[in-house]
Amino acid sequence: MGEFELIRNYFAAAPCAQPGEGVALGIGDDCALLSVAAGEQLAISTDTLVAGVHFPDVCDPFLLGQRALGVSASDLAAMGANPIAFTLALTLPDVSGEWLQAFARGLNDMAQGCSMRLIGGDTTRGPLSLTVTVFGAVPSGMALTRGGAQVGDLLCVGGPLGDGAGALPLVLNQRSTEASTTQALLARYWSPQPQFELGLALRGKATAALDISDGLLADCGHIALASGVRLLVERDKVPMSDALKAFFDPDEALNAALSGGDDYRLAFTLPPSRLADLLAAGQPVFVIGQVVEGQGVALIDEHGQDVTPLTRGYQHFRETR
Amino acid sequence: MGEFELIRNYFAAAPCAQPGEGVALGIGDDCALLSVAAGEQLAISTDTLVAGVHFPDVCDPFLLGQRALGVSASDLAAMGANPIAFTLALTLPDVSGEWLQAFARGLNDMAQGCSMRLIGGDTTRGPLSLTVTVFGAVPSGMALTRGGAQVGDLLCVGGPLGDGAGALPLVLNQRSTEASTTQALLARYWSPQPQFELGLALRGKATAALDISDGLLADCGHIALASGVRLLVERDKVPMSDALKAFFDPDEALNAALSGGDDYRLAFTLPPSRLADLLAAGQPVFVIGQVVEGQGVALIDEHGQDVTPLTRGYQHFRETR
Repeated sequence: MGEFELIRNYFAAAPCAQPGEGVALGIGDDCALLSVAAGEQLAISTDTLVAGVHFPDVCDPFLLGQRALGVSASDLAAMGANPIAFTLALTLPDVSGEWLQAFARGLNDMAQGCSMRLIGGDTTRGPLSLTVTVFGAVPSGMALTRGGAQVGDLLCVGGPLGDGAGALPLVLNQRSTEASTTQALLARYWSPQPQFELGLALRGKATAALDISDGLLADCGHIALASGVRLLVERDKVPMSDALKAFFDPDEALNAALSGGDDYRLAFTLPPSRLADLLAAGQPVFVIGQVVEGQGVALIDEHGQDVTPLTRGYQHFRETR
Repeated sequence: MGEFELIRNYFAAAPCAQPGEGVALGIGDDCALLSVAAGEQLAISTDTLVAGVHFPDVCDPFLLGQRALGVSASDLAAMGANPIAFTLALTLPDVSGEWLQAFARGLNDMAQGCSMRLIGGDTTRGPLSLTVTVFGAVPSGMALTRGGAQVGDLLCVGGPLGDGAGALPLVLNQRSTEASTTQALLARYWSPQPQFELGLALRGKATAALDISDGLLADCGHIALASGVRLLVERDKVPMSDALKAFFDPDEALNAALSGGDDYRLAFTLPPSRLADLLAAGQPVFVIGQVVEGQGVALIDEHGQDVTPLTRGYQHFRETR
C-alpha cells in the first residue's frame, strides 16, 4: 500500500465520514452515491485553493482544513441549500503525518459544524492545492439565484464586512495588534462560518442572493448584471466590526468592507415587506441600500452623491503584497 | 474583468455547456442545480491530474482535455450510472488563449461523446493541475459496487488491457514504432472511452464492478477485499491488443496488461448464467478467471499454478522513468 493510499484510508476513517442524511454510499468505491428527496434539487459548487495564491505557502494545516471547507460550503448557504456532503481533492508535495492529522482535524471540525460528510476524493502528489466540491439540497425552484432582484427591493448583507480582508496583514505577518483584535480578524479569515440559517430563512423571501467572496461592490455587480437592475450601496450603512475599526483607520476599514474578498457573508435583495419577519426571527439582516432601475453598482454618500471608488475588485493575498 | 474571469466566461460559453438532462441550473451562479428523477441516486466521483505526475509537463492541451474528462467519467461507467454533468477546477500558471482554446476543444469533444454538460468550476492561478468531478444517475439500489462478488462467479473484463501502460514510452518519447501502432496506443492513453454502455448492461447482472485504473491485479484486489473472496486470474485469457503485442515483447506486454494503470476498462464479476445474454447483446465481455473462496488475487497458468508477479501496483508515469 502506497503512502497516498494510506492517506486515503486516513481520510476515509476520519469522524467526518459519519453517516449523513442523503449519503447512500460514502468513500471507498468508484463513486459515492447521494439520494435526493422527491421535490428537491442538488446544489453543487467547486472551489480550489492554491498555496501561495489563496493561502500562504506556510500556514497552520488545522486552519487551512477549516477554511477550505468553510469557503466552499458558503456557496450552499448562498443558494438557500441544506448542506449534505463534500469531496476533497488534495494535492500534496510530500506526506507528513503531522500535517495531515492537523489538516484533517480542521476539516472535520468545519464538517461537523456544517453537518457535512466527506464522501470521496482523490489524493495526489504535486504542489499543494485543494479542490473542495460541496453538495446541498434545496426544494425544487426555491434556490436563491443572482437573477431575481426587483426595482424597489432592499439591498442587505448578513453581517459586518471587511474582516477577511482586514485579517490579511495579520495572515501575512505584516502588522500586529492587540490579541483580541488579532483573534477576531484571524477567526473570520481562517474559519469562515457559512450562513446556512440565514440562507434557509431567505428561501421564498429574498429575490436574489450570493455570498461575498470577491468583495461587496464586485459581488453586487454580479447581482445587478444577472438581474438587469442597478444597486445603490449607502456608504454609511455598510456594517463593520469593532475589530476592523480598531485595526484599520476609517478609510482602510471602509475599503476592506467594500472591496475586500474573503468575507463569505451573504448579500441579498429583499422586498421591504419581508424585512420585519426576518428581523423578528432573529436573522442578521443589515439593510445597506436599494435596487433601482438601471445597471451596475454605485456607492452613495449621505447626500445621495455617487462616491464609487475606482477599484473595487478582489485581490488575492499575493497581489496585495 | 480579470483574465481568469475571462477564462471562466470562455468555458461558460463553450458548446459543452449545452442543456443536459437533469441540469436545472448550469454555470454562473453560486451553485449549479441538478434534478434527480424519483427512484434514482446521484453517482459522484472526483479525480485530480497533476502536471509532471499524471501527464507530462509539456503535452497537447487538446489531448489533455479529452483525457481529464474521460478518466473521471470512467468511474460513472463502473457504477452503471448514466453520465449527466461535470465540474472542472483548472489551475494554470498563466493564461494562454491558444492553450485554453485547444484544451476546451478536447474537453468538449469528450463531453459531447459522453453526453455530459459542464455545470461549473473554478479557475485559479498556480501550478498546472485539473480536478474533474463527474455526476451520473443510477436507479436506487442498482449501482455496481465492488462488494458483491460471489464464489462461483466469473471474473471478466471489458476489453484488451495494457494499452494505456503500453503507450507510456510513446507519451514520454522514449521509444518509437510504426504509425498505426503508435496511433492505437496513444489513442487509448489520451482518449480513454468510458464503457458506459457496458456499465448499463451490467446493471442487475454483474455482482461487482470497477474500472481498471491501478492495473488489473491491483484493482482485482479491491474487489476481492470489498467482497471477501479470492479472485483467480488465468494468465492466458487476459486479452491484449495487436498494437500492444506488436510494440512490446510478450513479457512486457503481459506485465502492462496485468499491472499497468490507465486502462479504464471495466473489470467485473458475473454469475455464469448471465454471460450468454451479455454476449448476445454484443457487449465486450472477456472471461479471464473466477471467484473462489479465500482472499486476495492470484495469477494462474494453464496448469492452475500460481504465477503471481511480486509487483502489481500502479506506477505513475514519473515513477516509471
